[in-house]
Parts: sequence; C-alpha cells; structure tokens
Amino acid sequence: MEGVASRAGVSKETVYRWWPSKGEVLLEALAELGQRSIPAPDTGTFRNDLSAFMRATARALDPATRRLLRTVAAQAAVSDAFSAQARARFLARRREALSTVLQRAVDRGVLETDRVPVILDLVFGSLWYRLIFGIGPLDRAWADAVTETICETTSPPRSRSARSDEGDAR
Amino acid sequence: MEGVASRAGVSKETVYRWWPSKGEVLLEALAELGQRSIPAPDTGTFRNDLSAFMRATARALDPATRRLLRTVAAQAAVSDAFSAQARARFLARRREALSTVLQRAVDRGVLETDRVPVILDLVFGSLWYRLIFGIGPLDRAWADAVTETICETTSPPRSRSARSDEGDAR
Repeated sequence: MEGVASRAGVSKETVYRWWPSKGEVLLEALAELGQRSIPAPDTGTFRNDLSAFMRATARALDPATRRLLRTVAAQAAVSDAFSAQARARFLARRREALSTVLQRAVDRGVLETDRVPVILDLVFGSLWYRLIFGIGPLDRAWADAVTETICETTSPPRSRSARSDEGDAR
Repeated sequence: MEGVASRAGVSKETVYRWWPSKGEVLLEALAELGQRSIPAPDTGTFRNDLSAFMRATARALDPATRRLLRTVAAQAAVSDAFSAQARARFLARRREALSTVLQRAVDRGVLETDRVPVILDLVFGSLWYRLIFGIGPLDRAWADAVTETICETTSPPRSRSARSDEGDAR
C-alpha cells in the first residue's frame, strides 16, 4: 500500500480511504486493465463485435495477469466477503462490458434479452474454468471457438420460430 | 486418512497406495458422488437428455458439496500440481459424463462434433464461475437456462447452412 501511495504521490491514508485493503486495490487494477485493453467496438454485426471482444480478452491474459486472476479466484473460493468484493469491484465491470456487446445484438433483433445473463456466465465461466484448472489455453483459438458457439445461439425471429416448430426430435 | 482406512476396514498403507494424499481422496469421492447422483439417460432428444443432466447436477450441489468444490477450486487456483490432479481424478470424469450426452446429439446429427469441447467448457465453466464468485444460485432455473441456451446452438444440417448463407448482418 505504501508503494501505491508513493507512486501516486499521495498519503497512505488517501489510498486506504479509496481501497480499504490490498485485495481491493488488486481488483480495481484488474478492472482498469480490462477496461483499457478490452474494447467493445460496434462493428455492425454481433459476430464481429463478440469476436473483437473475445480476442482482446485472450490478448489481455498475459502470464502476470493470469497469476493475479488465479489469486483472485483462490481467495474468492474460500471467502464470501472477498467474493462479494470481486463481484462488485471487478466482475461486474467485465460483465457490463460484455453486456454492451450482447445488448447491441438484442437491439438488432438477433438475440433474446433473457439470454444475456446466461451468456455472460457461459463466456466468463469458460475463461475462469480453463484458467483455474488448466483445461486448455486461453488463446485466439479459444476466443474464436467461444464466439462461434455463442453466435449459434442467435438467429432472426423468423428462422427461430421455424426452428422451434420443428421441435427437437430429428 | 486414518478415518477412511478404519471405515473401509483396511490398513492406512492400503489407502495411501490408492490415494497418495488427502486431496486425491477428496477428488475421487467427488467423482464418485457425481457418477452416482448425475445420470445421463437417453431420453430420445438432446434437449431432454441435457435437461436431465443439468437438473441432476443442480440437485447434487448441496451445501456440503459446494463447500468441498470451493475448496478444490481454491487449491487448484494456487497449485498447478493439484490442478492436474483435479483434472485427472475428477473433472475428466464429469466431462466424460456430459460428453456422453453431447455425443448422442452428434450421432443424431443435431450437433457438430467440434462444438463438444467448447460446450463442455461453457457448461462446467458456468457452474464453477457461479459457485466461486457467488454470481447466482445453481438451481433448477440455472439448469434450465443453460439447457435452453446450449440447445439453441444445435440445428439440423439443412437449416444450419440456410442460416449461414444469410450471414450475420441482419
């Protein structure tokens, strides 16, 4: 905390006023990093919007960031209090960023509104699951595979109702 | 470990021969619990197969099991060695169970083979993400929302190619 204060040219008291603990400084820094390195551009199509977001996410996951994220996960898994801080200070901001992308798809009529929170869980879930358990790389191939699979869940209202008329028993 | 040996009526050495550490006993117990409490019945349709699997998963997540899973996640997040054990002893078996459900959909021609590993990550990712960070309940509503969203990624080959011809810019 002293290092943070001296780099920022403020008193340690000022730092503690904003971030009562080291964990909160870390969460805020991760949120800022995400905000800066992962844009959510409006490219005109959901597939390209999501692809840009996912590829930037994969690029932002350098080894130092991964280590910090794993530390956050370890602490959240054992502490409900830290878990709540992680949600409020960090995860909510990443969810908000991806929501922007998904909301645009809703506005274009290719995604149903009630799918948004489910897709947030699926996408960020895939990231944390792979990260914590070393299931596989979090690279461009991962970003693209998630993008393609999530994009399959979208469809124009017309073909969507045609598909549900067909039912599932094919 | 002594308790495990005495309950099983074997020597502590026998227990250690099979599970060199407490962590491995825990992972094996969780894998067994999953195997027993989460069947993967062949109901005739992918939606019903997946729904049965997801609802059984939600039911199996009682408070004691959640606590154990969070302990596993915390340990995996800080230790690559434990993470590898968790994959081999526990996660691989859950992935295999859900793969059975997904492979049936592939065999029925409603799911592409290369989607299987992505969907495994999305589904189990959603579970661990919600569990670790307390994003929301892991209940029947969660099971059903995941089922519906994943089922949207399936379609018969015909309407699938019709949809990709249309492109994404609607």
